Amino acid sequence: MNGAQAFADPELSARRGTAFDFAAWSQAALGRAESALDAALPQADTVPHHLHEAMRYAVMGGGKRVRALLVAASAEFARCPAPLADAMAVAIELIHAYSLVHDDLPAMDNDELRRGKPTVWKQFGEAQAVLVGDALQSSAFEVLAQACAAQPTSDGLAVIRLLAHASGSQGMCGGQAIDLASEDKALALPEVEQLHRMKTGALLVASVMMPAVAMRLPRAQHEALEQFARTVGLAFQIADDVLDATADSATLGKTAGKDAEQGKATYVSLLGLDDARRRAEALRLQAHAHLDSLGPRDGAGGLDALAALADLIVRRSH
Amino acid sequence: MNGAQAFADPELSARRGTAFDFAAWSQAALGRAESALDAALPQADTVPHHLHEAMRYAVMGGGKRVRALLVAASAEFARCPAPLADAMAVAIELIHAYSLVHDDLPAMDNDELRRGKPTVWKQFGEAQAVLVGDALQSSAFEVLAQACAAQPTSDGLAVIRLLAHASGSQGMCGGQAIDLASEDKALALPEVEQLHRMKTGALLVASVMMPAVAMRLPRAQHEALEQFARTVGLAFQIADDVLDATADSATLGKTAGKDAEQGKATYVSLLGLDDARRRAEALRLQAHAHLDSLGPRDGAGGLDALAALADLIVRRSH
Repeated sequence: MNGAQAFADPELSARRGTAFDFAAWSQAALGRAESALDAALPQADTVPHHLHEAMRYAVMGGGKRVRALLVAASAEFARCPAPLADAMAVAIELIHAYSLVHDDLPAMDNDELRRGKPTVWKQFGEAQAVLVGDALQSSAFEVLAQACAAQPTSDGLAVIRLLAHASGSQGMCGGQAIDLASEDKALALPEVEQLHRMKTGALLVASVMMPAVAMRLPRAQHEALEQFARTVGLAFQIADDVLDATADSATLGKTAGKDAEQGKATYVSLLGLDDARRRAEALRLQAHAHLDSLGPRDGAGGLDALAALADLIVRRSH
Repeated sequence: MNGAQAFADPELSARRGTAFDFAAWSQAALGRAESALDAALPQADTVPHHLHEAMRYAVMGGGKRVRALLVAASAEFARCPAPLADAMAVAIELIHAYSLVHDDLPAMDNDELRRGKPTVWKQFGEAQAVLVGDALQSSAFEVLAQACAAQPTSDGLAVIRLLAHASGSQGMCGGQAIDLASEDKALALPEVEQLHRMKTGALLVASVMMPAVAMRLPRAQHEALEQFARTVGLAFQIADDVLDATADSATLGKTAGKDAEQGKATYVSLLGLDDARRRAEALRLQAHAHLDSLGPRDGAGGLDALAALADLIVRRSH
């Protein structure tokens, strides 16, 4: 798939009645993110070659870059300098990419297909896949520390702390641990929500909040953005569960129908397909309301882009 | 083994003719490091319980804490505030611990014994071990960012960048990747040195340099400390190879004789046992000379402790 095309939905932009061109915005933001990722990763001819080749394979192989786009939109709203915004987008995508590499391992989800390609362990071996993930995580913090140091007025240490916490045992890794422990267990809705708040929500929230923290936004703005991000994070997971239950592997670029096969409790298994879809749509409207409290959308990006991303996250086809 | 006892060597202190009591110093520094690690890791009753229990198992099970002691000694020389020094010791030990958890995995070194106990994957399963390592790495950067933010005059972002680089694909992870790729290959001495400069040396150097970077030591001091750290890092690996070839598993607390069994090129296989020992001793003396350029040892810690640690690293029995 082509990420930029996937985000081009003029119908949605038009419905908001602004001049904001989300297709152009997301294409530009994606282009910046890809360039920044390419520049941040060591070239494959840097020693050790094989590891760097595998790191690039893990990161540069596409993906929707939802987190990078959330960072870019939030950074516009927070008036974050472009080099720092790009570094935050890189850092969050490196963390996300490392988590996919490790999640796909035979000892974890045992997945062989990711973004339409063999997973890193299938392509480079298990040992290499462990190291690729480990090195991508280090790299995220290295990139972030370097970029923050170049913007002395930003609160770089708070940004790093935020990303580290969102990635760790009380964020993404913790959610994955709960997920692994809950296979074939009958989780109830609050448990499923906690799982996903940690497993996928924490990183989505960090994507929106890193620019806000870096630029020390006032408390009220900080809180409205955080509400927006939590709402979108939840909607993202519901949409994911709906897709897992309804789309095919070719469209998803990963193995579809795994949740039901593994007996996992999902929003679809708990609420039914129709109610899950209704819930996601309600969350989309809530997310818009949180943005409305931050000011008018001026068609220039920032809030417009955040709103369009909320739409996209709920209504995406893969 | 008891780490504090292992470092009590009054003979070495006496031979230097100072009043420095290394046994007391290292016991105090170890106590501080253990307390700080205990405080930094979430309690096992924090959700997810199982993951936090496994993280504590991985970290709190002893070990020599060489890296924490190097941080403590260097922090004294650099006059680094204690809370920041403790956080740097914690961060480096968390990174080291995560690397051991991942290195022990079946897909990597396939080790079942570590510090005299079952390895994390043997005790908690492979999937959990992957997550334990991942979360420990995040935790290292979280602890560091938090402590640096509380010391606004320190150069926290430079410290984080240093640790991230030392941990990543051009440091520890990169060294491990080269090591994996070189099994049953006839590496020559320069290649073995590069491997170990990355795999173990990078983190040992970071241990010494984090306080220097945090406190912005003058360039000349920075460089002498870096020379010291590189020399000690190399000596550490040679001593490790000697121990792997000569000690038994019970003394080491891990499987002995693995290098020869796996056909790995080591300092012992390349130089022979006697020359390897002589090389380590020569490096120990070089390390002392680098410290001499930093000023007189006053018996109060800092340089004295760094010197005693260099002695210990070369002359340890496990």
